[in-house]
Amino acid sequence: MTGRPDAGTPPPIAPRNRRRREAGALPQRPWRQPRNPYRPLKVLSEEQLARIEAASFTLLETLGLEIMHDGALDLLARAGATVDRATRRVRLDRGLVLDQVRKAPAQFTLHARNPAHDVVIGGNRIAFCSVSSAPNCSDLDRGRRPGTYADFCDLLRLAQSLNVVHCATGYPVEPIDLPPETRHLDAHYGFITLTDRVWQPSAIGPWRIRDGLAMNALARGIDAAGLKAKPGLITIVNTNSPLRVDGPMIDGLMAMAEAGQAVVVTPFTLAGAMAPSTLAGALAQQNAEALGVIALLQLAAPGAPVVYGGFTSNVDMKSGAPAFGTPEYVKATLAGGQLARRYDLPFRSSNACAANAVDAQAAYESCMSVWAAVMAHANYVKHGAGWMEGGLVASFEKMVLDAEILQEMSAFLDGLAVDEDSLALEAIAEVGPGGHFFGAAHTLARYETAFYAPMLSDWRNFESWREAGAQDAAQRANAIWKKLLAAYEPPPLDPAIDEALKDYVARRKAEGGIPKN
Amino acid sequence: MTGRPDAGTPPPIAPRNRRRREAGALPQRPWRQPRNPYRPLKVLSEEQLARIEAASFTLLETLGLEIMHDGALDLLARAGATVDRATRRVRLDRGLVLDQVRKAPAQFTLHARNPAHDVVIGGNRIAFCSVSSAPNCSDLDRGRRPGTYADFCDLLRLAQSLNVVHCATGYPVEPIDLPPETRHLDAHYGFITLTDRVWQPSAIGPWRIRDGLAMNALARGIDAAGLKAKPGLITIVNTNSPLRVDGPMIDGLMAMAEAGQAVVVTPFTLAGAMAPSTLAGALAQQNAEALGVIALLQLAAPGAPVVYGGFTSNVDMKSGAPAFGTPEYVKATLAGGQLARRYDLPFRSSNACAANAVDAQAAYESCMSVWAAVMAHANYVKHGAGWMEGGLVASFEKMVLDAEILQEMSAFLDGLAVDEDSLALEAIAEVGPGGHFFGAAHTLARYETAFYAPMLSDWRNFESWREAGAQDAAQRANAIWKKLLAAYEPPPLDPAIDEALKDYVARRKAEGGIPKN
Repeated sequence: MTGRPDAGTPPPIAPRNRRRREAGALPQRPWRQPRNPYRPLKVLSEEQLARIEAASFTLLETLGLEIMHDGALDLLARAGATVDRATRRVRLDRGLVLDQVRKAPAQFTLHARNPAHDVVIGGNRIAFCSVSSAPNCSDLDRGRRPGTYADFCDLLRLAQSLNVVHCATGYPVEPIDLPPETRHLDAHYGFITLTDRVWQPSAIGPWRIRDGLAMNALARGIDAAGLKAKPGLITIVNTNSPLRVDGPMIDGLMAMAEAGQAVVVTPFTLAGAMAPSTLAGALAQQNAEALGVIALLQLAAPGAPVVYGGFTSNVDMKSGAPAFGTPEYVKATLAGGQLARRYDLPFRSSNACAANAVDAQAAYESCMSVWAAVMAHANYVKHGAGWMEGGLVASFEKMVLDAEILQEMSAFLDGLAVDEDSLALEAIAEVGPGGHFFGAAHTLARYETAFYAPMLSDWRNFESWREAGAQDAAQRANAIWKKLLAAYEPPPLDPAIDEALKDYVARRKAEGGIPKN
Repeated sequence: MTGRPDAGTPPPIAPRNRRRREAGALPQRPWRQPRNPYRPLKVLSEEQLARIEAASFTLLETLGLEIMHDGALDLLARAGATVDRATRRVRLDRGLVLDQVRKAPAQFTLHARNPAHDVVIGGNRIAFCSVSSAPNCSDLDRGRRPGTYADFCDLLRLAQSLNVVHCATGYPVEPIDLPPETRHLDAHYGFITLTDRVWQPSAIGPWRIRDGLAMNALARGIDAAGLKAKPGLITIVNTNSPLRVDGPMIDGLMAMAEAGQAVVVTPFTLAGAMAPSTLAGALAQQNAEALGVIALLQLAAPGAPVVYGGFTSNVDMKSGAPAFGTPEYVKATLAGGQLARRYDLPFRSSNACAANAVDAQAAYESCMSVWAAVMAHANYVKHGAGWMEGGLVASFEKMVLDAEILQEMSAFLDGLAVDEDSLALEAIAEVGPGGHFFGAAHTLARYETAFYAPMLSDWRNFESWREAGAQDAAQRANAIWKKLLAAYEPPPLDPAIDEALKDYVARRKAEGGIPKN
């Protein structure tokens, strides 16, 4: 199943054994976007927030952004920005910026080919995404290696198998065994056929987006107008921090926004490298870049769905290596949520970690990231499951570990019932002082559903755990993803649609895919 | 250094190499109690909170508590409670309960023999404690084993070496190689000489408390009045849930309260076992037990320092095994904080986990527990470092893992500065679009201190990490505790005080320690 496909059609996707019941034995919560019922956590006072915003406006007005795209420069100049064509520097007045940013919707829906898996982005909803953009993948059996299309497909199968992964947004791993000029066509075909979730085309240049739009419409049996009315795609546009936006990113952003699809604008503000080594400065820069690009997007396509992205973390000052899930990352995430809410925009965060193994470090860094995302009221959590090594690896075992963490957070977000039944005064009276509740009618009636049932946690006592092989969480995660893959079944797809998609891919491959400049 | 000491004096404490500089190389934050600047997280609405409280009052008024202590029954009867001597059942009116609870201070200071390590319990302060009460200990070299006094001492040395462990409260592991009737004397001697922190005598029966009071006074060069004026001890009183309080616990509680020392009252309300399998019911029961015992304590010693303890978690319904760090645990902890604040009492929580290995599960369960404790505004976090297997094991490696998590939370609680310097507009202008901040003056000036420096996290890239041995977090923690123990130096102690303590221990051992029956 590896190797470069020589026909124009998508490479064959290896069939999987059908043993659904086994996977059914794994405790999973049903597919459902959590709603966050709790108050967001604020790390900035109102005064601090206003100061950071004011600094970001000063940056936009005095330094400006370097915009590496002629069409964008024209658009910004017409809107009243001060554009220096020679340096491509654009200075944006705060009034202009806010007028544009205000046009963006506070909340929108992304439509999956299975309507049961539509996601709402905004408000108090959360969408957790699978890992994306890793050059490598790893698992305990095969080790760490560059990604292939087989790995790409298996990671998507896992994403589809995990109910807590709401979107399969982004290449889980780069399939480097496929030719770059047509790779995106096979990737899109994989997203559509292996999952029934919202997915993400790559935003580098306009071609991938155009093919993504066409294939999303085919998959859903709609046309461009239908796609615009009910967007189904979302992509990520990173700035080239500090204060620069690359041309191909803007091409992708324009193509998406004009087609009514959603864009996440994420400044790449690693404090100490691409941003100042102080969080306030990094956040001011993040805000300047995010608002500047969102304003550009709204000028190109007023009202287009857009998400305010926060990715501010810090580097290890000794090595320059990026660090994630750190105290600085947590604070920046919470502050990012405050900034996004200030503009009534949905907020994007991540489940980020820098660990090299699926060990305690991976877990505590991811927990710090996920808690921060949830307390920041993030609406769109990229890399929710499977991300390692600061994004260099998509790990099969980490995907299961993260799914456990995300499921636990989702159960926490359920809140708790307080009513006559749950207060259980009669049960307490029945048991009485010094008794126990194991056999009480109130307990027996709730035997199956009283508490969150974990997928990965092992709660056996030490002796039983040791007798069963003393497997640590990474080893257990290894067994779980294999079980999930063994039981995987592709979501149903109309054969006529499948044929149309195959034809599209074959035709575009025959055309050569992305033109070589 | 193991084995039963046959002399009356404390068993010799093995000397440690003096290589302080090496330990100094481990990045640690200074010893300091964090203050929580953020708003507590509420999982209960005001109405839900009021319903749980009302249910707990109904329990106290209708079912009451079973109090296995004649003196306590007398005291309660005199105060107006309805006491049934035959069943030892005490029914307490809500007015009576609240009148007593109101006498407890909202905040108090516990005095260590080193005044720099005094801790404030209450308000927005947090004190993190070392693991306590484990029957076993474990490390990667020697495996899991019953505890000895040598392990007890090494775990205390670690607690003393970790700045983020503010109190050495409780036997880190039970030293089963020492005779039970005098074990507490050696334990107290270990607390006092190996650490200079606030410590915890065992509250089972009055004798251990009496010896604890005497030795704490000796160590601090004060008398009983001085000890009462400046309390230095804190202990835990668990209820025997549901709704029963054992006699020896009350003996300990009385002895502590009358001496002006602090007591943490912790109902042992494991939902599904000792409490209903619904959180609302378990919390109502927790609140009834906590308030009932706190009222008793305030009757015995009005104004004595007391802490509202929350330990509500759930069992695994399949096996009956206790589970910790679960979504239910998180919700119960946050609700517990809301209840404690309702009575203006300091709140106790824990860093709890059920994992059998120092793996990803240990980390995510502990992270869930610590986040919950911090967001609940817990003031006293028991088992902050080293607790595993639901309390059955004190782990040397877990101690280091937890110290990392606690340090990260402490750094998060520092908040962030937003001022001209940290907004760094000049630095951003200096670097300009597309540049980088590695060499910027603003960065270089903050090279050492800009970001949290981890003790355990490894941020090297995969290749460097693999070349260095590909150690996971547990293996790195193993190296760290050895380094800390190698560099450990006992905190200074006046030799005269040491002699006096040795004499006390020898005399009490000669008397036989705790009388049988």
